[in-house]
Amino acid sequence: MRKRLYEVIEVADEKDNLSKFYDVFMMIVIVCSLVPIATKGVGLFSPIIDHVTAVIFIIDYLLRLVTADLKLKKGAKSFCLYPITPMAIIDLLSILPSIIAVSEALRILKVLRLLRTLKVFRVFKVIRYSKSISIIINVFKRQKESLLVVCGLAVGYILISALIVLSVEPETFPTFFDAVYWATVSLTTVGYGDIYPVSMAGKIITMCSTLFGIAIVALPAGIVTAGYMDELNKIRKEKVDKDGPEV
Amino acid sequence: MRKRLYEVIEVADEKDNLSKFYDVFMMIVIVCSLVPIATKGVGLFSPIIDHVTAVIFIIDYLLRLVTADLKLKKGAKSFCLYPITPMAIIDLLSILPSIIAVSEALRILKVLRLLRTLKVFRVFKVIRYSKSISIIINVFKRQKESLLVVCGLAVGYILISALIVLSVEPETFPTFFDAVYWATVSLTTVGYGDIYPVSMAGKIITMCSTLFGIAIVALPAGIVTAGYMDELNKIRKEKVDKDGPEV
Amino acid sequence: MRKRLYEVIEVADEKDNLSKFYDVFMMIVIVCSLVPIATKGVGLFSPIIDHVTAVIFIIDYLLRLVTADLKLKKGAKSFCLYPITPMAIIDLLSILPSIIAVSEALRILKVLRLLRTLKVFRVFKVIRYSKSISIIINVFKRQKESLLVVCGLAVGYILISALIVLSVEPETFPTFFDAVYWATVSLTTVGYGDIYPVSMAGKIITMCSTLFGIAIVALPAGIVTAGYMDELNKIRKEKVDKDGPEV
Amino acid sequence: MRKRLYEVIEVADEKDNLSKFYDVFMMIVIVCSLVPIATKGVGLFSPIIDHVTAVIFIIDYLLRLVTADLKLKKGAKSFCLYPITPMAIIDLLSILPSIIAVSEALRILKVLRLLRTLKVFRVFKVIRYSKSISIIINVFKRQKESLLVVCGLAVGYILISALIVLSVEPETFPTFFDAVYWATVSLTTVGYGDIYPVSMAGKIITMCSTLFGIAIVALPAGIVTAGYMDELNKIRKEKVDKDGPEV
Repeated sequence: MRKRLYEVIEVADEKDNLSKFYDVFMMIVIVCSLVPIATKGVGLFSPIIDHVTAVIFIIDYLLRLVTADLKLKKGAKSFCLYPITPMAIIDLLSILPSIIAVSEALRILKVLRLLRTLKVFRVFKVIRYSKSISIIINVFKRQKESLLVVCGLAVGYILISALIVLSVEPETFPTFFDAVYWATVSLTTVGYGDIYPVSMAGKIITMCSTLFGIAIVALPAGIVTAGYMDELNKIRKEKVDKDGPEV
Repeated sequence: MRKRLYEVIEVADEKDNLSKFYDVFMMIVIVCSLVPIATKGVGLFSPIIDHVTAVIFIIDYLLRLVTADLKLKKGAKSFCLYPITPMAIIDLLSILPSIIAVSEALRILKVLRLLRTLKVFRVFKVIRYSKSISIIINVFKRQKESLLVVCGLAVGYILISALIVLSVEPETFPTFFDAVYWATVSLTTVGYGDIYPVSMAGKIITMCSTLFGIAIVALPAGIVTAGYMDELNKIRKEKVDKDGPEV
Repeated sequence: MRKRLYEVIEVADEKDNLSKFYDVFMMIVIVCSLVPIATKGVGLFSPIIDHVTAVIFIIDYLLRLVTADLKLKKGAKSFCLYPITPMAIIDLLSILPSIIAVSEALRILKVLRLLRTLKVFRVFKVIRYSKSISIIINVFKRQKESLLVVCGLAVGYILISALIVLSVEPETFPTFFDAVYWATVSLTTVGYGDIYPVSMAGKIITMCSTLFGIAIVALPAGIVTAGYMDELNKIRKEKVDKDGPEV
Repeated sequence: MRKRLYEVIEVADEKDNLSKFYDVFMMIVIVCSLVPIATKGVGLFSPIIDHVTAVIFIIDYLLRLVTADLKLKKGAKSFCLYPITPMAIIDLLSILPSIIAVSEALRILKVLRLLRTLKVFRVFKVIRYSKSISIIINVFKRQKESLLVVCGLAVGYILISALIVLSVEPETFPTFFDAVYWATVSLTTVGYGDIYPVSMAGKIITMCSTLFGIAIVALPAGIVTAGYMDELNKIRKEKVDKDGPEV
């Protein structure tokens, strides 16, 4: 019977109706549990939703813990190992604020509930047989090394820009963090205008930094797009090879 | 005679001069009817234009209603069905504010007149034999599935960013709507600077969200551009296959 | 002798040293004449530079007028036709403010002097044998039709966005021009933050407009870049066909 | 022995452990020397780190000077030539502020210490056998001419925009530098909102300038991305030619 439970909770089998129902049900619960966050707890039903979803999450957590040995396949040790897997930690942290009633002092922990939004990605289970999603995932896998290098380059460029502007205009940027924030907001071309250099030296650095930087910070976006088009063309070619040319 | 009327109003036949004249005439009327909106009703002729164009639109609406059976091809039922087709609803709503004189209380309905701007797309009738426009429409058709997925991804990313920032910095963002507005303005890199996080946690989330997000939110634009270039190359290749290589 | 003068002023012959010297000299004069504009007339030499460059421009204008028949090849009629060619009008307008001494009242005309900056493009004469510049010009020529359509689409989208936002939020946007300015600044993602919707309806329109609009407004940039890369690849292929494969 | 010293300091030999250790050690020292800049000299250890790293940099500088003849291969002349090589000047300038104690008056020189951040690029020595980095460097090398032309075009466009806006709206832009700063911030679409035209003429110029300009200013980024994808495809093709098609 525990085996059946495991199948329902963890295994994503298209033919297993109960498993599919559980996935959809949990997705709805997750979305519902986000409503009190989105409404900031205002609304009559907010505390009720909060409590009901918390109870469901606790049961879900316990059920997953009970079937841990079937998932990790490490025998009795699994029950000790499971609570320290990343998803289990997120699960636990997202339940905690609901368990401990002192909500004011635990606002910080409450934030962690948002990590539960990561569970939203479970939605991809449902549509994982969609061609388009698998293409995007493929792009990220294939371009993984390029994306890592290019993101590293972007982060490095941001840090160096921040350092230079910090030392040129220490009055405007109280801390290194502010300088990094400025560099990120500028190089992504968001430019809120809440923080910007006011001295001539700072402005010159801003100009040089943005002119050269947007090419570097735009690279990841470009690679993802180009990789996506590449993947699409490849699939079309394979189709043509198989089915003959389309008219 | 009703058949001829239908041909003039609805069918876009290049050889039918009266039909072409009607299209051009309606286009001019539509553009004229926008002038009072653009000038905010200021100007001597604004009310006159308003009334004249309204009368023309009412006649146009009635003529279309009268020839509805020829368009929908469902016999007498067409006359009941036509008023609930999307374009007919827009037509009706755009006339309404002109019919009912109480303009102040109906400001909201007046907004609907703008839906009439959709009629501006009728201009494409005239140039629908243009190669370039048909290419762009082709791109949207071919990449429809990709664009839907990618737009869904972008919207999902925006909603999650909004949720996270809302729970981290509830003081800055009064409602969930404000957070979504902030996320959209930030991830499209517009960055007005009317709303932005002020706490350290909020700023960190802004940095992470924009750095990863611009790649996702820029994908639709990239797909449209790449698809457009693809289509252009395909057409050129076909041309070369037909006409032999250009020098 | 007038023929020789014409060769020196108008014909760009690589072997003719005097012609080349004249081009370089005029370029220096043009750049110098911009200095008083850049320094806002402050500086000891500003009025002197202003007068000297004005005299040179007047002589240049007269010389061109005298050799007009050699350029337009229409006999005596050329002397009447030349002053109404676009470049001649710009030349005349750029001289005018210097001739008429009442500078305060002619500030508006002074602006026209900036049209002279168009003369800066004469710099391309010197580097017109550069491969890269000719590639970019080729791209604009080849993609001319696409660029026109795409720019038309972008302008149309901006105008429709402006109309909608104007009618939804007339308090924020005093005139149609303000709405167009807002739409342009938003859709190009500049987002100064000097003007933005404050009502909920206005914000919703901003979000929809930017999310869909950046793809459309980014198309011209994408076409130019893609066309440029296309052209580069074509040139490389031709090179390979001629010289055999590079290692 | 001096030869060995040279090998350790300058030659990047994968098999030479001492050389590798020296590179890593210097990288750590460089990163550490940046900490006091990032913390703005606040913190107990800041002055200590400042002095220790300064001493190490002085020793490094002297060692490099002593082995200069082995590097430049110009005999005794090398010792005179070395101090005027770019990297040696940066080295010297970065040490200077630490030598001269009067730190307040030398704040400007202290800025130069940031040039030391260029030394961070030495980090690429370690990963220079990484495929991705070499691809990016290749892209910059191959597209060098294109990038130069395109960057020149972008800078030219920015200067012309600045000139036009300066003469149209001299009240908003006190100096030419402010106009250039505005043009750069606008055309890179950062748009802080600290400076923007307020007159109608200025706004019209802003709209035209940004609509046409983003295509030009975005070209370098596009070329880098497209070149990168080109390079990736070339490498894959070579791999296929060598290893046979991947499945």
